[in-house]
Amino acid sequence: MKPDYPIEECGVFGVYGVPDAVPLIYRGLFSLQHRGQEGAGMVVSDGEIVKSSKGLGLVNEVLTKGSLDGLNGNLGIGHVRYSTTGSTRIQNVQPIVVECVDGIWAVAHNGNLVNASKLRRMYQEAGAIFQTSTDSEVLVHLLADPMYRTRPRRVARALSELEGSFSFLLMTKNCVMAARDRLGFRPLSIGKLGKGWVFASETCALTQVGAEYVRDVNPGELVVADSTTGLHSSVFADSEKDKLAQCVFELVYFARPDSVVFGENVHDIRLKYGMRLAEEYPVEADVVTPIPDSGNSAALGYSRKSGIPLDYGFIRNHYVGRTFIMPEANDRAKGVDMKLSVLKDVVNGKRVVVVDDSIVRGTTAQRRVEALRQAGAREIHVRISCPPTAHPCFFGIDFPTKEELVAGSKDVEKIREFIGADSLGYLSVKGLLSPLKNPSGFCVACYTGDYPVDISRMRGKKALEQFSPDLQLDTGS
Amino acid sequence: MKPDYPIEECGVFGVYGVPDAVPLIYRGLFSLQHRGQEGAGMVVSDGEIVKSSKGLGLVNEVLTKGSLDGLNGNLGIGHVRYSTTGSTRIQNVQPIVVECVDGIWAVAHNGNLVNASKLRRMYQEAGAIFQTSTDSEVLVHLLADPMYRTRPRRVARALSELEGSFSFLLMTKNCVMAARDRLGFRPLSIGKLGKGWVFASETCALTQVGAEYVRDVNPGELVVADSTTGLHSSVFADSEKDKLAQCVFELVYFARPDSVVFGENVHDIRLKYGMRLAEEYPVEADVVTPIPDSGNSAALGYSRKSGIPLDYGFIRNHYVGRTFIMPEANDRAKGVDMKLSVLKDVVNGKRVVVVDDSIVRGTTAQRRVEALRQAGAREIHVRISCPPTAHPCFFGIDFPTKEELVAGSKDVEKIREFIGADSLGYLSVKGLLSPLKNPSGFCVACYTGDYPVDISRMRGKKALEQFSPDLQLDTGS
Amino acid sequence: MKPDYPIEECGVFGVYGVPDAVPLIYRGLFSLQHRGQEGAGMVVSDGEIVKSSKGLGLVNEVLTKGSLDGLNGNLGIGHVRYSTTGSTRIQNVQPIVVECVDGIWAVAHNGNLVNASKLRRMYQEAGAIFQTSTDSEVLVHLLADPMYRTRPRRVARALSELEGSFSFLLMTKNCVMAARDRLGFRPLSIGKLGKGWVFASETCALTQVGAEYVRDVNPGELVVADSTTGLHSSVFADSEKDKLAQCVFELVYFARPDSVVFGENVHDIRLKYGMRLAEEYPVEADVVTPIPDSGNSAALGYSRKSGIPLDYGFIRNHYVGRTFIMPEANDRAKGVDMKLSVLKDVVNGKRVVVVDDSIVRGTTAQRRVEALRQAGAREIHVRISCPPTAHPCFFGIDFPTKEELVAGSKDVEKIREFIGADSLGYLSVKGLLSPLKNPSGFCVACYTGDYPVDISRMRGKKALEQFSPDLQLDTGS
Amino acid sequence: MKPDYPIEECGVFGVYGVPDAVPLIYRGLFSLQHRGQEGAGMVVSDGEIVKSSKGLGLVNEVLTKGSLDGLNGNLGIGHVRYSTTGSTRIQNVQPIVVECVDGIWAVAHNGNLVNASKLRRMYQEAGAIFQTSTDSEVLVHLLADPMYRTRPRRVARALSELEGSFSFLLMTKNCVMAARDRLGFRPLSIGKLGKGWVFASETCALTQVGAEYVRDVNPGELVVADSTTGLHSSVFADSEKDKLAQCVFELVYFARPDSVVFGENVHDIRLKYGMRLAEEYPVEADVVTPIPDSGNSAALGYSRKSGIPLDYGFIRNHYVGRTFIMPEANDRAKGVDMKLSVLKDVVNGKRVVVVDDSIVRGTTAQRRVEALRQAGAREIHVRISCPPTAHPCFFGIDFPTKEELVAGSKDVEKIREFIGADSLGYLSVKGLLSPLKNPSGFCVACYTGDYPVDISRMRGKKALEQFSPDLQLDTGS
Repeated sequence: MKPDYPIEECGVFGVYGVPDAVPLIYRGLFSLQHRGQEGAGMVVSDGEIVKSSKGLGLVNEVLTKGSLDGLNGNLGIGHVRYSTTGSTRIQNVQPIVVECVDGIWAVAHNGNLVNASKLRRMYQEAGAIFQTSTDSEVLVHLLADPMYRTRPRRVARALSELEGSFSFLLMTKNCVMAARDRLGFRPLSIGKLGKGWVFASETCALTQVGAEYVRDVNPGELVVADSTTGLHSSVFADSEKDKLAQCVFELVYFARPDSVVFGENVHDIRLKYGMRLAEEYPVEADVVTPIPDSGNSAALGYSRKSGIPLDYGFIRNHYVGRTFIMPEANDRAKGVDMKLSVLKDVVNGKRVVVVDDSIVRGTTAQRRVEALRQAGAREIHVRISCPPTAHPCFFGIDFPTKEELVAGSKDVEKIREFIGADSLGYLSVKGLLSPLKNPSGFCVACYTGDYPVDISRMRGKKALEQFSPDLQLDTGS
Repeated sequence: MKPDYPIEECGVFGVYGVPDAVPLIYRGLFSLQHRGQEGAGMVVSDGEIVKSSKGLGLVNEVLTKGSLDGLNGNLGIGHVRYSTTGSTRIQNVQPIVVECVDGIWAVAHNGNLVNASKLRRMYQEAGAIFQTSTDSEVLVHLLADPMYRTRPRRVARALSELEGSFSFLLMTKNCVMAARDRLGFRPLSIGKLGKGWVFASETCALTQVGAEYVRDVNPGELVVADSTTGLHSSVFADSEKDKLAQCVFELVYFARPDSVVFGENVHDIRLKYGMRLAEEYPVEADVVTPIPDSGNSAALGYSRKSGIPLDYGFIRNHYVGRTFIMPEANDRAKGVDMKLSVLKDVVNGKRVVVVDDSIVRGTTAQRRVEALRQAGAREIHVRISCPPTAHPCFFGIDFPTKEELVAGSKDVEKIREFIGADSLGYLSVKGLLSPLKNPSGFCVACYTGDYPVDISRMRGKKALEQFSPDLQLDTGS
Repeated sequence: MKPDYPIEECGVFGVYGVPDAVPLIYRGLFSLQHRGQEGAGMVVSDGEIVKSSKGLGLVNEVLTKGSLDGLNGNLGIGHVRYSTTGSTRIQNVQPIVVECVDGIWAVAHNGNLVNASKLRRMYQEAGAIFQTSTDSEVLVHLLADPMYRTRPRRVARALSELEGSFSFLLMTKNCVMAARDRLGFRPLSIGKLGKGWVFASETCALTQVGAEYVRDVNPGELVVADSTTGLHSSVFADSEKDKLAQCVFELVYFARPDSVVFGENVHDIRLKYGMRLAEEYPVEADVVTPIPDSGNSAALGYSRKSGIPLDYGFIRNHYVGRTFIMPEANDRAKGVDMKLSVLKDVVNGKRVVVVDDSIVRGTTAQRRVEALRQAGAREIHVRISCPPTAHPCFFGIDFPTKEELVAGSKDVEKIREFIGADSLGYLSVKGLLSPLKNPSGFCVACYTGDYPVDISRMRGKKALEQFSPDLQLDTGS
Repeated sequence: MKPDYPIEECGVFGVYGVPDAVPLIYRGLFSLQHRGQEGAGMVVSDGEIVKSSKGLGLVNEVLTKGSLDGLNGNLGIGHVRYSTTGSTRIQNVQPIVVECVDGIWAVAHNGNLVNASKLRRMYQEAGAIFQTSTDSEVLVHLLADPMYRTRPRRVARALSELEGSFSFLLMTKNCVMAARDRLGFRPLSIGKLGKGWVFASETCALTQVGAEYVRDVNPGELVVADSTTGLHSSVFADSEKDKLAQCVFELVYFARPDSVVFGENVHDIRLKYGMRLAEEYPVEADVVTPIPDSGNSAALGYSRKSGIPLDYGFIRNHYVGRTFIMPEANDRAKGVDMKLSVLKDVVNGKRVVVVDDSIVRGTTAQRRVEALRQAGAREIHVRISCPPTAHPCFFGIDFPTKEELVAGSKDVEKIREFIGADSLGYLSVKGLLSPLKNPSGFCVACYTGDYPVDISRMRGKKALEQFSPDLQLDTGS
């Protein structure tokens, strides 16, 4: 069974023109680890020889001293991949590295190509073979297609064939490219490091390697770093600023609070969500507590606006990992969690406001409420810093299905009942958009069901699986 | 080199009279993991056969499904051991399990026996052999000594020979015992679980397994759980409530905030330390930020008392583990930390109060201040929720040596200069003791140098090493 | 540096129509382990879902209980891959599994395609991408090529495009195919197991799984096992029995002595080689000893023919593996080997005939002679059961280069001098072919330099490397 | 269940006065690996600091580059331990290293102390604690006993208290000692290497490190190598040459054929056993085949004497290790072995003499006979190069119990029936002793039941287990 939270998507990181690419990519990926824990990989080139290392696991498990031995260069790209269960295959770990007529291409992808199935079938009809079950592989077929072969427009034309969400880093033996889909679903930032360039899903990775944030890759833009001076930009698809579909969930949940994403300071936005939530759903209470760490910023905002003091009602055990899970000790310890412990003294006899960033299945929220209740909380008021998540995402976030989403079938009052809280408040869509500089440039389809593009043929992962019933397929990244 | 923070000591956990001891001990140790990450072990008995599993590493690395295969029983004890470098030996991982004339004994120890060397030599003179280099091993020789063999007074008499700090869990094939030194240096709590008993270094472990906190083992008390009804208590050493030497550092730093230790609610005490610190060292500032997670509670207190808003100036990367450490990416990333990132927006242009629980070597504090400075902090005011740590501990905490402790040779102004802060305030000893119910019952020697017992022959680890120059020795636990 | 012996080539194994394919493939690959120790993999299908497991290492390291979990089916193929140094890549481990328009194809290859570079370039020109650096990957592009798409002749036509040596096992979700190049370089046998079929590089693998040997796949033949009754055979290339190029080195060295290869009983042929060698190079001596185990059969033959008693002059240490190699203990132990020890008593003061199957670099032979000398051997007469190996192989055997082959630059007398023997005799080419039923059907190019096909454009591995200078390439299998 | 062969006992290896002890001990243990595969360890000293590394597994698994890091010195001892199932404990791996009043002692033991239980209890009564469940641990208690403390006679007196079989290597920080029990059950040889000394269970280990064989440690002798010139010998127990109890099974089975053990050349003795067997049990047959490698020498002798040609009827798969064992493929492959394959051509239609060194449970012999039968052997004549093994060993060999030994309850004719052979011949006891130089100096109790010492209180492993019913105990070594 999938976990009871939105599965974080992939992260990409690349450098060009630096003295030693390997430690930079390592650190960059490490700071993007929250975007994907299933697999990690990096590809580097010294201008002639391209070498790669990848595997299943966390950055520090996969990219060990031994596995990086022999890799060196002054350009490279890396990828962290999200965690699914079961069909995980080493073949699907990115960057994908292939050889075609012009030499080596490596691809790292964050997003979900909604016309991947169509393109895959089209190329297969023409004789192509596919070795991964990711949507990302179609790009390399496009890149290798003789139709697109008059460089330099080749990559741009290939990208223009893709629909859906993508923030791509591409690499040949002597250049690195970055591209973002025309609706700008996923973030992608550019940084400057000495005379070289850095590309990253989030700015926190730029900071980690000491790079200076320059700007984002624009929606519909392809940026090329090569041996000529400066970056080269070209537009492969038209894009209008107020018709973008930037993923608001990056701000709500995915991105690290110390990142700037879509021009917004993540922590600051979450603080504002908490404040707004206090306005939309005020309550008389004694204490505000976050679910750490995802609810930290919003809880602070709620506390500030409401004047109700913040305190730490939950303590996080930092040693919880992908661990051998002991069965529950016994009935008496039901609701006792190995990851979060209730700080009894903080909540006992109190009216408690609990702030978190989302409810997915509802079972975890239920358990937290029960734990607070057992610890003596008198009233429990749950506040969620986004609207009810009721619709699937086809653009790169792996929610449970609509049936599994508690808000897919229950209204707020029924959810409140289900989780056992005394009150439950979700931030409104209006509240969600209000603090943003460009509110019309965001996709909020997971809350409204109002998708930014025609989804009649967009069935994401499902589509690919129907197409290839005899191979177990994973969605791209 | 040792890390720049006090090394956490050992943790002990035991159960008697429960249906299945193994998952309880696993979960108990897991919730005490912060007290020791070097090694872990458990010993269980079904009343006849005693089996054990132990090894170097974290609880979830050592006590795997495979290694626990075949272990079962209704009583048992476990241990987590702190991390040192270099001379770590599998032989030293506890519980120690031995066979003597009366059968099997297992011992788990938190503390430091200051007369271990003397006893070791005494027993060696009489022909005894030692197989570990821990101080804890002397207890089993005492237990096996024919002099003490008229049970039931045997264990009590053996314990009365020991000097220094100890919270012991002992076990035979059919009983579990708990004992605490007469000065009560280290905590040890008793819980009730159904018809059985639970013993743990901190109450957070009782909560984890669903046990109800009953009371602490008293200083100088031996408690026995066996097949007869109830617990049996005996006193092996006199103890006066206001002459105890309970370790105040457990409250300041070691214990988990959701534990009750020495009758004090840890989070609450730390909150009060922060408030007191605000009184002792007020400052005009824009924001208060903790060093997560160690400074969280005190920062909250400082913010509440001072009225300066709390915010999260640092973000913790949860994937930092015992990892392959890449060299620093480059000069530009100096001060950039893989564990804590500065949230630039929170501190840029601000006057920042940074609250943490201690400064050991000072190098980490220096790096944090530098990172804030780089992120644009206008003023940086460091507040520490305890007095300057200037003296070594002989009772179970592994600080760096006096030479390595920055407060061992520098006064506060010099430390401020060293770490580069605009101001630096340490909580006073008076402030440290003021919120405690029994202020005269605590050891504050690491701040004052005023040791609760004669230390002329107490040189802790060093002493043992001098005694056994030809074997690499580790201090007990 | 490569080891001082011919590197064993790949082995393939497949089953169709059996109750449980996984243990059969495991055991089949295990008995072919001598043909490749670098990597192993298997692919199985239940008629609908295709699943695979592969990795770097030995069969029992890669195909563990865990990695095979979830695999099941009644058809499947497997592969063991030879060991090289350095550029070993997980991507190159076979079977290759791809998806093309008709579904999944899996390919396992033993041999070396000499026109792989040409085909690779041709498909790349047309837009194809390659994800491995093996020559084998071109076959899947041929299979996916629309030109060949009118089944059932598709596979046959694809195979007819290939030049060089190949014994292929192919698999879709519901059938298994076996094919062998028109010159029959590499062996491939067919067995019957209940109602199902088994395919294997050597008959020893048929025996291992209890299958009955039926016949070999003919040179130029494609054999298909599917749900219709019986096997379906088709010819994709003309082949004449006395113009075959079956690899005589399989008989001399590669194949297991308990296999029947190219219709010849391997042990029996080697015994005859030893007897022939005794005729060609008789000597007065006291004892005949094999280099175990490679020289066992020939030594027995030499002893029988010459009447000189056989004895075991060398003992093999069975614990030598891919181990942490300690530096030599000291000068006094020079020539002392961790793998073979001399049995002093057998050789001391004796005139010794040492029989082995080949000399590659000569350094190992030199060391063995020295070891015998140190043990007191009076005379040392080396006999090799094949002619001097002086020419590279382009058809699937990875010898050192001509420069590294001692017989590439030295005549027999110089080699004798180099290894320090009193006499040295190599079997003649005539002697090599004489015991074979179809002597004109064998390739002996590594001895004569007389290649069975035009090698002007056949440069094997080298060719591929030149073609793809920016990717580190491994030869097929 | 234990395997169907006598479990090999421990091996010991030590050096004194060499430039670098670590690689020597590594290579020495490696060449003794056949004597024990359960665990390995080494202890070295530079004259001041004693360091050790040990663990469960083979030499090359345990003594890795990493685990040996930091070990160095010019003296040291090592141990390989035999493999048992289940109760294997890391604590029992040797050398045992302890600290007593005089400093560090390390002990490596091959043998079985029959009065270990008595001594263990005696010391426990006096207050001693035991941390292993090996019999060997009693020696260190004796060494630490103040009664024996007037050096230099201390060690000799301690040894004189021991009964049973022992070849000991002892070590302090600056000397190495070797001792052998008065009946000389287990071998122990002395070698010279430059100015230093080497001690080893078998001479093959001396050869491996380039040392020259000097002599054996005499029964009842203690040899000391220290900084004074030469070796120092003392006698701790009287011993008569023709009343020794040297283990004949070392010659029959345990020792490597290239060792000299008890003054006998192992391969030569086995060859003679085969010749004698041909005299005692002649048969008309077409071929003689050994079970490799244990029957190799005797089969050669049988062939020579009988004139029946030797051939290799079985091929050994060198990749069989401690591997994931697949269930048998199917019924058709019954009797098919992953370790030994029958060479059909050699036995088909033939009358075959199969020579091996022992039959333990009989089930393996049964399977081999069945495999030969399936391969077409017309007659199968089994010849065993020792008498029927019918009695347990209390002196260091871990046979199955008498109930499990097929010869414990069946006569030869019944065994023949059980294994399915056409005839079965065991070497006579007379034949066993006849080629030995000192036939009256050997223990043949496992064949005759005639034990060299009173066994009424000698119950080996069982005894220890009864004594410590609540700890799972392993016999020494």
